[in-house]
Amino acid sequence: MTNPDKFYRGKKVLVTGGLGFIGLNLSRSLLELGATVTVLDNFMPTDVSRPLAEFIGKIKVAIADIRDAEKVERVVRDQEVIFNLAGKSGAADSNKTPLNDLDINCRGHLNVLEACRVFNPGVAIVFPSSRLVYGKPHYLPVDEKHPLAPESIYAAHKLAVENYHLIYGKLYGIKATVLRISNPYGPFQAGEGRAYGIANSFIQAAVSGRTITLFGDGGQRRDYLYIDDLVDALLRAASRPESRGRTYNIGDGQGISLLELAEKAVLEAGGGEIVRVPWPEEYRAIETGDYLSDISLARKELGWSPRTDIREGIARTVISYR
Amino acid sequence: MTNPDKFYRGKKVLVTGGLGFIGLNLSRSLLELGATVTVLDNFMPTDVSRPLAEFIGKIKVAIADIRDAEKVERVVRDQEVIFNLAGKSGAADSNKTPLNDLDINCRGHLNVLEACRVFNPGVAIVFPSSRLVYGKPHYLPVDEKHPLAPESIYAAHKLAVENYHLIYGKLYGIKATVLRISNPYGPFQAGEGRAYGIANSFIQAAVSGRTITLFGDGGQRRDYLYIDDLVDALLRAASRPESRGRTYNIGDGQGISLLELAEKAVLEAGGGEIVRVPWPEEYRAIETGDYLSDISLARKELGWSPRTDIREGIARTVISYR
Repeated sequence: MTNPDKFYRGKKVLVTGGLGFIGLNLSRSLLELGATVTVLDNFMPTDVSRPLAEFIGKIKVAIADIRDAEKVERVVRDQEVIFNLAGKSGAADSNKTPLNDLDINCRGHLNVLEACRVFNPGVAIVFPSSRLVYGKPHYLPVDEKHPLAPESIYAAHKLAVENYHLIYGKLYGIKATVLRISNPYGPFQAGEGRAYGIANSFIQAAVSGRTITLFGDGGQRRDYLYIDDLVDALLRAASRPESRGRTYNIGDGQGISLLELAEKAVLEAGGGEIVRVPWPEEYRAIETGDYLSDISLARKELGWSPRTDIREGIARTVISYR
Repeated sequence: MTNPDKFYRGKKVLVTGGLGFIGLNLSRSLLELGATVTVLDNFMPTDVSRPLAEFIGKIKVAIADIRDAEKVERVVRDQEVIFNLAGKSGAADSNKTPLNDLDINCRGHLNVLEACRVFNPGVAIVFPSSRLVYGKPHYLPVDEKHPLAPESIYAAHKLAVENYHLIYGKLYGIKATVLRISNPYGPFQAGEGRAYGIANSFIQAAVSGRTITLFGDGGQRRDYLYIDDLVDALLRAASRPESRGRTYNIGDGQGISLLELAEKAVLEAGGGEIVRVPWPEEYRAIETGDYLSDISLARKELGWSPRTDIREGIARTVISYR
């Protein structure tokens, strides 16, 4: 069993999409564990807080688009571990601009993997996919054997890129691991422009005393994963030899309704107001109903389990937004 | 139950990739059924036989690459049925040039579907995917619920494009059907430059008195589908309302080893010689072992079943090559 505390000490680690929500949280942990951290991102946030600016000063930052194969090659060549978080998120958006989604989310990742194949085939790489590859669940909780039926271009591309990673693993020896993550939330946003996910947007709204908009009755259950637990899963996935070529669900395994989530956000923040509106058509089309992760495999093979319950996670996130 | 004989009479039908092996055979049937046939292909074969030239004279031919969105739009707009056969085949090749495979096989098909969405959302479209989306079978025969684990970039992209078709069906009402076909073979090739598949290449070699090269012992079983049976499946898939949004395995359902296939080709052709060589690495890497289709679903929902046994199919193909 690998101890992540020792594994990352002195390791050269690349985080693509490293200035996003997950990337910043992960990079901070990597730095604490003694890794030499490089982040690759396509834009440098301009309105960063002082703590964030200080943090960014301690890592290497390469500003480049993953569609730029030459720049990607230069950054990838001498890394020992890659967390391949880059990409464009948003299922509804992907359906409006499928060719753009293809370009960033498929071609970009092929660039990263091609650079690994040519310059760095011994690298360990972790790809965070999405629970959206399953589509509407046939049963709950959803395990990794559940049928795959993506319902948006974003999810279809996530599945394609999962397969790219596993194929490059088999063909070229790259140590690839896929995580199908549910809905992450938590502190350490790089400003409003990069808000991430529904839980954080609810909490932000509550903290600012704004309205939280629910579509329909807000009854659909979802699995919200606190960011520290996700970071822990990422760190374990790259450091364990057992995870090579494997795919794991990473979620909270519990699940609450959107309405409960909104109520908890309002309660913890002491502000905000819940408003219900009818389903907009473009969201209804990609709505997948209740979702719950079966995380038994990750518990078993990664020795991982989520440690932060939703109330505590929301409370910590509220504090960070203040 | 729709009678394909009547369904296609007077219908405007587009066959993308229509000058390829499957496309030409399908287009010929469509013409016989009274359809107005347009084929879209990226190149016009130069060394066509007289019967083929005469046939091509009876259909509309649009020479364009499916990556050319504008030309695709013009051809797609007023069709009633599309058989979306265009694309680049070859699993080994796709691993060498993944970005090129992405461009043709993903972006090209998004162009076709985007043109349908904007100009022709009522169209019926059939996409021939591949049994390679299953990867190495976990059990035989393989039904449509078998896990999906593509082992080449080609297969990963076939799966992505399956999902595109089904997603466009759900989101925009396009009547999409996916067929996961096994190894088609048979007459009506458009010259050597467009040889298609392993069975035809064996038969061609035997007819020409050349050697048939087997990798290893040639023991792996495969499911070879005679082209007329595949054309029948394609015609049924587009004409039946039940097939909308559905995915079907289309194969022979029987299966013989590569060695038996080679022996039958030599026997029927009265020539050729079988030679065994060790597995080349690039082919071993994508070799998926024995494969057999479970075609129960297509039998039930399309009323389809293969009618040509392998000996008869090889005999007819031998005649066509002479």
